[in-house]
Amino acid sequence: MAIVLEGGRYGKAEVRLLRVTRDGASHDIRDLNVTVTLSGDVDASYVAGDNSSVLTTDAQKNAVFAFAKTHGVGEIEEFALLLARHFAAFQPVARVHVAQYPWERVRGHSFARGGRETRTATVTCRGEEAWVVSGLEDLTLLNTAGSEFRGFARDAYTTLPETTDRILATAVSARWRHTGALSGGAWGESYAAVAGLLAEAFADTYSHSLQETLFAMGRQVLAKLDGIAEVRLSLPNKHHIEVDLSPFGLDNSSEVFYPADRPYGLIEGTVARDDAPPAGLAW
Amino acid sequence: MAIVLEGGRYGKAEVRLLRVTRDGASHDIRDLNVTVTLSGDVDASYVAGDNSSVLTTDAQKNAVFAFAKTHGVGEIEEFALLLARHFAAFQPVARVHVAQYPWERVRGHSFARGGRETRTATVTCRGEEAWVVSGLEDLTLLNTAGSEFRGFARDAYTTLPETTDRILATAVSARWRHTGALSGGAWGESYAAVAGLLAEAFADTYSHSLQETLFAMGRQVLAKLDGIAEVRLSLPNKHHIEVDLSPFGLDNSSEVFYPADRPYGLIEGTVARDDAPPAGLAW
Amino acid sequence: MAIVLEGGRYGKAEVRLLRVTRDGASHDIRDLNVTVTLSGDVDASYVAGDNSSVLTTDAQKNAVFAFAKTHGVGEIEEFALLLARHFAAFQPVARVHVAQYPWERVRGHSFARGGRETRTATVTCRGEEAWVVSGLEDLTLLNTAGSEFRGFARDAYTTLPETTDRILATAVSARWRHTGALSGGAWGESYAAVAGLLAEAFADTYSHSLQETLFAMGRQVLAKLDGIAEVRLSLPNKHHIEVDLSPFGLDNSSEVFYPADRPYGLIEGTVARDDAPPAGLAW
Amino acid sequence: MAIVLEGGRYGKAEVRLLRVTRDGASHDIRDLNVTVTLSGDVDASYVAGDNSSVLTTDAQKNAVFAFAKTHGVGEIEEFALLLARHFAAFQPVARVHVAQYPWERVRGHSFARGGRETRTATVTCRGEEAWVVSGLEDLTLLNTAGSEFRGFARDAYTTLPETTDRILATAVSARWRHTGALSGGAWGESYAAVAGLLAEAFADTYSHSLQETLFAMGRQVLAKLDGIAEVRLSLPNKHHIEVDLSPFGLDNSSEVFYPADRPYGLIEGTVARDDAPPAGLAW
Repeated sequence: MAIVLEGGRYGKAEVRLLRVTRDGASHDIRDLNVTVTLSGDVDASYVAGDNSSVLTTDAQKNAVFAFAKTHGVGEIEEFALLLARHFAAFQPVARVHVAQYPWERVRGHSFARGGRETRTATVTCRGEEAWVVSGLEDLTLLNTAGSEFRGFARDAYTTLPETTDRILATAVSARWRHTGALSGGAWGESYAAVAGLLAEAFADTYSHSLQETLFAMGRQVLAKLDGIAEVRLSLPNKHHIEVDLSPFGLDNSSEVFYPADRPYGLIEGTVARDDAPPAGLAW
Repeated sequence: MAIVLEGGRYGKAEVRLLRVTRDGASHDIRDLNVTVTLSGDVDASYVAGDNSSVLTTDAQKNAVFAFAKTHGVGEIEEFALLLARHFAAFQPVARVHVAQYPWERVRGHSFARGGRETRTATVTCRGEEAWVVSGLEDLTLLNTAGSEFRGFARDAYTTLPETTDRILATAVSARWRHTGALSGGAWGESYAAVAGLLAEAFADTYSHSLQETLFAMGRQVLAKLDGIAEVRLSLPNKHHIEVDLSPFGLDNSSEVFYPADRPYGLIEGTVARDDAPPAGLAW
Repeated sequence: MAIVLEGGRYGKAEVRLLRVTRDGASHDIRDLNVTVTLSGDVDASYVAGDNSSVLTTDAQKNAVFAFAKTHGVGEIEEFALLLARHFAAFQPVARVHVAQYPWERVRGHSFARGGRETRTATVTCRGEEAWVVSGLEDLTLLNTAGSEFRGFARDAYTTLPETTDRILATAVSARWRHTGALSGGAWGESYAAVAGLLAEAFADTYSHSLQETLFAMGRQVLAKLDGIAEVRLSLPNKHHIEVDLSPFGLDNSSEVFYPADRPYGLIEGTVARDDAPPAGLAW
Repeated sequence: MAIVLEGGRYGKAEVRLLRVTRDGASHDIRDLNVTVTLSGDVDASYVAGDNSSVLTTDAQKNAVFAFAKTHGVGEIEEFALLLARHFAAFQPVARVHVAQYPWERVRGHSFARGGRETRTATVTCRGEEAWVVSGLEDLTLLNTAGSEFRGFARDAYTTLPETTDRILATAVSARWRHTGALSGGAWGESYAAVAGLLAEAFADTYSHSLQETLFAMGRQVLAKLDGIAEVRLSLPNKHHIEVDLSPFGLDNSSEVFYPADRPYGLIEGTVARDDAPPAGLAW
């Protein structure tokens, strides 16, 4: 029996970064959170204390800043690609994850944090190969109609009444693979299309369960956008509990709800084309 | 020497509440967080274990839900007034604080959490008297130009270089008193006006310090809106540190910044009319 | 009518600091979070953009680090006193708040974060005067017996059943004034005594309400420790709701509880000697 | 081309639970956070809105509470096993994750939240098979000596100086598989042994990098405990930056540090026996 290392990986997490570009009086900003992970040939540092193949996480951070200066930050997929390719020249496998926080313009050089969700991109590179995953987080959606939940299984611990009218609410985490590489602003157009379709499908689907809504959201994206190969969704069921007002002589006709913190349902799944290209190291 | 109780107060904190209203296919929602605090005649419960004058915090919560049903939730100042008056009939002093989270409509009955800030109202009632404070939280603003910081005092621990061009960023917490009572939609109009003026003054003020910007924001509100008596502001200075790229042969012309988490400056102050009516129990 | 500034104050918040001391192979650490607030003569910076009387918050941070080096960090009250006196030589009023996180020794130079609560000190200085407030946060306590809640008032919204046996749980925030100045290790002894008495009084008091427990906790401190003038307590009532297991044919004899996140009761009050010295600027 | 569902799974997350046991005046408590995930035969609900095979997450929550009553909560591995086996009779694959928060006894029936870390267990069941993973989270460790970092690779973005003396700090997340099933208190003994060895190995290893320390921690567990097959570790490098005090004429001999929030290094890896039994569905 020997004791061995498996799956070693290391990197710098949560490099916060604001990139400003100026075109006369009109400025633009990108507000990012970047995480780098390297793997593939790291055993000596773990097993033998030999750091000669370790690219310091401090240098990784510096590269993130330097690339933001040199190349600017356009679409985050492209920024992550540039960085991941750079790091993959050093370690066999490099992954770069970027989160972009939303801001709205107030004036030419003044901005307010605002918007619905955080946009993400995760790029993994090995040699010349690259895998791009786009995504979003914290898109909180709520329907006040068009949601029922009934016909479910009943065991000895089932007390939930069936309902034909409930609040359906979730905070969408979604990540999707592309069928091919895009470039420049096409990443942004693709992102906007996916984010819009997810919100629309949530709104427009008459829901028999959050599971069904999840599938409908992914299906809508794939049905409308040939460039998307696969969508992974994680949907907490943010329960809104109708308050019993009968002790006070009041009828609550789906008007007053208590949004519960915990516990919450958690519904997950992947919606994919059956002919999607292989995922490789994307995930 | 005797051991005595002072300043006893109790209540229910963070009653989360979603109120839905329906007008055919078009619905509307209010997403609130309500805190009730009662005081003024509470000593027996603390000192003697006599609960006969204690209105349970559970009943306070129930009243919040019941009032949401019976009266609806229009402007949060009015909802807080209704509740505070109700509780002030029981205890000498009642305070109700309401936070309203922002949502945007996607469809007739579908909504997305989004927007810039959380709106607040705090109403304090004693007998027939009422004091209303409106406010907002988490309005994060950032200027990429028009901010300098120099000419400051220098002591033995001062190493900060002077700058004529820096990022100015903050997350505004503001609360303001009104010169008189409003009603109905006028609360919402007043709120929108104040929130807009705060963001505009932040954008338009050439800033020699965040202190100066704070005063300019408050002054702008008071100068434009006769109905506002006093504005209290708490502004964290969210430092954005220009990254030194010279080790990499790069010039950073105010393009790449590191948004620091901690420490942060904290600038606070009140901007008031010198003839403002007395604050009473407002704060 | 003029628009004026009131209550201006500024400073550096949340300066994180680890101070290491070494005595051969045995080391010691202090893990702190320090906040400085200056006030009293700050109007020019707010009103006129004149920074000549502004001590930069960066310099405040530097002084915190330098003082940690020069004077070490023994008891946090003394460290805060040193800093507040230093800053009060610059601005009329200086306040320094220190939070100390708990660590346990694993080996001579190895430590594990652990313990029950965060210790705090807040010192305010004006000229030669100084006010010291000691405190603690996040001391979470829970009794499984000795707590009832009944005999309370009943209004139209009261549905809570009376109970003679409930879980009582809270997260103690406490701050206390001293009747006189201490020095050196006496601050630590006083702190340990107060923290112990608060936990003991919580455990030993048969509780008719959390209000009564609050008063008993403060009274116990004042009764046992002549050096404490006043204790301010903020006690969230962390509700533990007995789960109804009857649908499953089970009897829940106070065995299975659901710890609710929100809403929670919030019970506050001050327990003081009626002959306590005046509070001055302590709070 | 067809659009298909993959990897569907659903369950109830974060069921908070306090279990009290009473033996005369001496009570005992377990404070848990339980998450259930079911998978394996869930497609109809996603694809066809057919809920007939859905066990409501509400029923899952009820079962957690009922099992806590009926079976008590001894070692969390056993509690998770009971629950996972129960759910695996319904869905092909069931996973139950339990986190246990630490409490210390103050008196017979009075407790204070305290301790170093959160203990976890994750049990996955498929048919008669069961896989048990034990773990811990948030074990924050810090060494003030015995850590260097030098001899690392240097690229164009490397500016970090080599150091022969630095603070090494991390917050351990660890999960480990067992070579065989235990029963009753043996789970607790195994847990205490692993947790102790992890902290000891962190303290006793002279560290050339956090990577080396990670491997040493895992190796120590496997070398001393035959019952552990594999340890997975995720170690954030909580950077403590030595403050430059030279502008103030002070020498900082590794005495004053700034604990940075972000970014942080993140070092991960698995330490395993090369003859470990197959992992199956454990992870």
